[in-house]
Amino acid sequence: MSVSGFGVHTAMWAMEWNRAAAEFAIPEAVKHKIDFLEITMLDPEGVDADHTRSLLEKHEVDCVCSLGLPLDRLPTNNPEGALEFLTMALDKSHAIGAKAMSGVIYGGIGQRTGVAPTQGEIDATARVVAKAAAYAAKLGMDYGLEAVNRYENHILNTAEQAVDLCERVGAKNVFVHLDTYHMNIEEKGIANGILKAREHLKYIHLSASDRGTPGCDTIQWDEVFAALAAIGFKGGMAMESFITVPPQVASALSVWRPVAPSREEVLGQGLPFLRGKARQYGLI
Amino acid sequence: MSVSGFGVHTAMWAMEWNRAAAEFAIPEAVKHKIDFLEITMLDPEGVDADHTRSLLEKHEVDCVCSLGLPLDRLPTNNPEGALEFLTMALDKSHAIGAKAMSGVIYGGIGQRTGVAPTQGEIDATARVVAKAAAYAAKLGMDYGLEAVNRYENHILNTAEQAVDLCERVGAKNVFVHLDTYHMNIEEKGIANGILKAREHLKYIHLSASDRGTPGCDTIQWDEVFAALAAIGFKGGMAMESFITVPPQVASALSVWRPVAPSREEVLGQGLPFLRGKARQYGLI
Amino acid sequence: MSVSGFGVHTAMWAMEWNRAAAEFAIPEAVKHKIDFLEITMLDPEGVDADHTRSLLEKHEVDCVCSLGLPLDRLPTNNPEGALEFLTMALDKSHAIGAKAMSGVIYGGIGQRTGVAPTQGEIDATARVVAKAAAYAAKLGMDYGLEAVNRYENHILNTAEQAVDLCERVGAKNVFVHLDTYHMNIEEKGIANGILKAREHLKYIHLSASDRGTPGCDTIQWDEVFAALAAIGFKGGMAMESFITVPPQVASALSVWRPVAPSREEVLGQGLPFLRGKARQYGLI
Amino acid sequence: MSVSGFGVHTAMWAMEWNRAAAEFAIPEAVKHKIDFLEITMLDPEGVDADHTRSLLEKHEVDCVCSLGLPLDRLPTNNPEGALEFLTMALDKSHAIGAKAMSGVIYGGIGQRTGVAPTQGEIDATARVVAKAAAYAAKLGMDYGLEAVNRYENHILNTAEQAVDLCERVGAKNVFVHLDTYHMNIEEKGIANGILKAREHLKYIHLSASDRGTPGCDTIQWDEVFAALAAIGFKGGMAMESFITVPPQVASALSVWRPVAPSREEVLGQGLPFLRGKARQYGLI
Repeated sequence: MSVSGFGVHTAMWAMEWNRAAAEFAIPEAVKHKIDFLEITMLDPEGVDADHTRSLLEKHEVDCVCSLGLPLDRLPTNNPEGALEFLTMALDKSHAIGAKAMSGVIYGGIGQRTGVAPTQGEIDATARVVAKAAAYAAKLGMDYGLEAVNRYENHILNTAEQAVDLCERVGAKNVFVHLDTYHMNIEEKGIANGILKAREHLKYIHLSASDRGTPGCDTIQWDEVFAALAAIGFKGGMAMESFITVPPQVASALSVWRPVAPSREEVLGQGLPFLRGKARQYGLI
Repeated sequence: MSVSGFGVHTAMWAMEWNRAAAEFAIPEAVKHKIDFLEITMLDPEGVDADHTRSLLEKHEVDCVCSLGLPLDRLPTNNPEGALEFLTMALDKSHAIGAKAMSGVIYGGIGQRTGVAPTQGEIDATARVVAKAAAYAAKLGMDYGLEAVNRYENHILNTAEQAVDLCERVGAKNVFVHLDTYHMNIEEKGIANGILKAREHLKYIHLSASDRGTPGCDTIQWDEVFAALAAIGFKGGMAMESFITVPPQVASALSVWRPVAPSREEVLGQGLPFLRGKARQYGLI
Repeated sequence: MSVSGFGVHTAMWAMEWNRAAAEFAIPEAVKHKIDFLEITMLDPEGVDADHTRSLLEKHEVDCVCSLGLPLDRLPTNNPEGALEFLTMALDKSHAIGAKAMSGVIYGGIGQRTGVAPTQGEIDATARVVAKAAAYAAKLGMDYGLEAVNRYENHILNTAEQAVDLCERVGAKNVFVHLDTYHMNIEEKGIANGILKAREHLKYIHLSASDRGTPGCDTIQWDEVFAALAAIGFKGGMAMESFITVPPQVASALSVWRPVAPSREEVLGQGLPFLRGKARQYGLI
Repeated sequence: MSVSGFGVHTAMWAMEWNRAAAEFAIPEAVKHKIDFLEITMLDPEGVDADHTRSLLEKHEVDCVCSLGLPLDRLPTNNPEGALEFLTMALDKSHAIGAKAMSGVIYGGIGQRTGVAPTQGEIDATARVVAKAAAYAAKLGMDYGLEAVNRYENHILNTAEQAVDLCERVGAKNVFVHLDTYHMNIEEKGIANGILKAREHLKYIHLSASDRGTPGCDTIQWDEVFAALAAIGFKGGMAMESFITVPPQVASALSVWRPVAPSREEVLGQGLPFLRGKARQYGLI
């Protein structure tokens, strides 16, 4: 994957990605000498791609786009709707200049039936992912599958499940995307997700255990970075914190209180902490 | 609180507490030399109290009862229904011989409005808890408030919030109940919940980060036990693992896969691990 | 003890405490907004007390003096010589304005007979400490006993041993001084030393596991700070790093390579890291 | 290297390896289903090789021999004496049936001049190691260099230094041997030694931070095992604890008190703990 080094998720500055958000976030983000920005699109259709692209180019920063599917357009309940949405989102991501689209792009945040995923659901998921990934390949883009915790989705919770789907689809441009916040809940040892994903792992969210300030939480960061170094990880590391959560997203993410005292703390303490650990283990 | 030492949550053997469950779980539990059993009542009304009580007496083991309110009988949407349910559950717990009732007995698992709790919701919660705790006091019972993670409830997620409610109610028999699984997601450092709750903390669930086998997970157990020892914790420590989850509860707990290879692993490895750590830090 | 808050050990700037060292270290140290300076005296007799005192007063910073006894003037081989040396060092510390003298002031760095300490050695140690502490009391000073690792001394290696000596001497002004570097080698869990020392603990060296940059090492800092917070620690926390070690001290401390890339890294990364953790656990 | 899986160091049963020790230790060791035994030879010349070999064969267990050089026969002060001693020890190890000899076989425990190692010392060390390793190769044996902490030796303290010497010698049968006890003091993060040694690492001592019971100490075992798994470690893992230390060795190892309550605790708790962690991270 062409994205590598340190990035930051746009939730640091804005949850809805519109012109105002882009004009605020991009110049702020580059002050922190990041290699890329992860732009989350709650509403990909509404994004002004040319506007974002020109700001990214002006500030010379790469980007990855991320999203989750609407709950009425899932591979499991509306495969055609899901594929249509993913195709549109890929076009938009491509127009923005993203080298990859990633996230819960095999389902939705909040997707759960109340029981374990069935083989039929997994089959349906794999079919849509295969088609969307093929479309991404035509655009020269990579396609990432992010395992999230049991409360947010019931299809992919562990690195192992993400690897299984990745290998089943078998496309070169499909990769595993992990997140320390989710691994902290789902993996038997924080490094185990990294070990299981190994060669498929191309992207990781460095997210505190409470989605606040990394380093001021329960994650065993030494273990995370040591494992990344040990597997020879070369992908993108994006700090993610949900410091800025508007009401309409709070529910999907279950954020009921400020996760950190301020954006300044997350950027001023969390980001240097993560970079220090990456340096300690020879990743940067 | 009269409950102290090591206990095990009945989810280890059965989620629904009926005669068959009691006949299976109680003799099995005492093989592990526990001081008490935590009996979760999904349907308190249906529990045969005399039957459970006589088995507990026969096997000479204490008990704590735990539950969450039905989602249509919450202090926030049906305060009278909530109080009625709690009164009934307290009577049942008392009949079983429990010295305390604890858990999400200020609300329900799955209680969430999609936005942060309002002051009105907190007021309503405090009023019902005050009345239920007063009733518990008449029965000579303690009343515990368990903070759970953001996905399971939006009223009490952190130790600090539980302490606030506890102090607001101001009754001698109300205490804070913490759980390592939830603290791992909500607290800024796993020990911070213990530090914040301090003198109000009388009960703790020792639960793995994935609700599987303690010690084979992401929890920093040394920090947990060191903090418990440092605050002079004298309450009950209950190992909890959701190894046995029937379909009707899986959804509320979001358990979609076996959390551990077997009950034997959790009891045979997890329990000795926890006891070893308690010994290492001078708690037992 | 009157010393509290954050301090830094003078090894950060100079190992030998002379006029040049004082003129360099004191103004540098106060740039970091410390509450006190720990001045190590390799040669107490040679220290120009008035000069140091006036610099400390000018820069409005408290101090603690620390040292180890010469190996030919130990309580175990030369009790009168030991007491004479300690009396002289206490006078000098008092003249500098120190509120406490601490360190291996019950023996020497490098004191070891090749076998476990005998009861006779411990008795001799207690006698000298009792007399020196009584002299310190007359000067209004506290007297600290620092447990150090097995290689540096064979009398006090663990917090428990330091507490035993402290309680045996039984003087109000005698306290236990711990050091994370030594506890990391000697204690069964890094917090265990803190738990064992509890009410006697009034001073702690926050020292990395390799004596380099705190936070870039193997110490479990969350556990250290959580335990300090839990016991209600109110004493002094001194960052110590042996970044500046002249040849004549290297041998006693066994420092054969630079312990960190630079003084700037230790002060610029290590000190903020420690302060951040202290804040996370409510200690400052 | 042919040695792999789990082993135990003979210090668990005896420090001096004589006929009585062999007759006690070997049958005891195999009760724990180990793959190999590490036999430490304080006096290689005095070992009855045929006796040990026949016991090892009878109990079907592999072995590795380990030692340190006498302080008057170091590569730095007596290169011919050192080589002669190593040759004799290799012959003895070969006669016992060891596939590898390892440890401080580039110098001695207690080797230190009081200053940093000079280039001349490193050159002298490399010359002797190269010759001894060549002799080992003729016997079909591997030759391991164990980095030990700053107090025990001043030549090789870090994994990086061991790798440098290993690469300088450049022989196929020379490998790096690490030890968690030493890494806990010397490495910037416990996994960093493993990362630095990577392809040269063929043997590791799993030793508690106080040389007592693994799992009841300050080592971050999850990080150790995760890093071993991540680099694809296939070598031998030997539990080491100095529970049995006779007076004449106590001084070199600086063991002044029992490192654990009993041999039973180390074998009964420590060994299963280590195996559980190895399983958790997919190493066994």
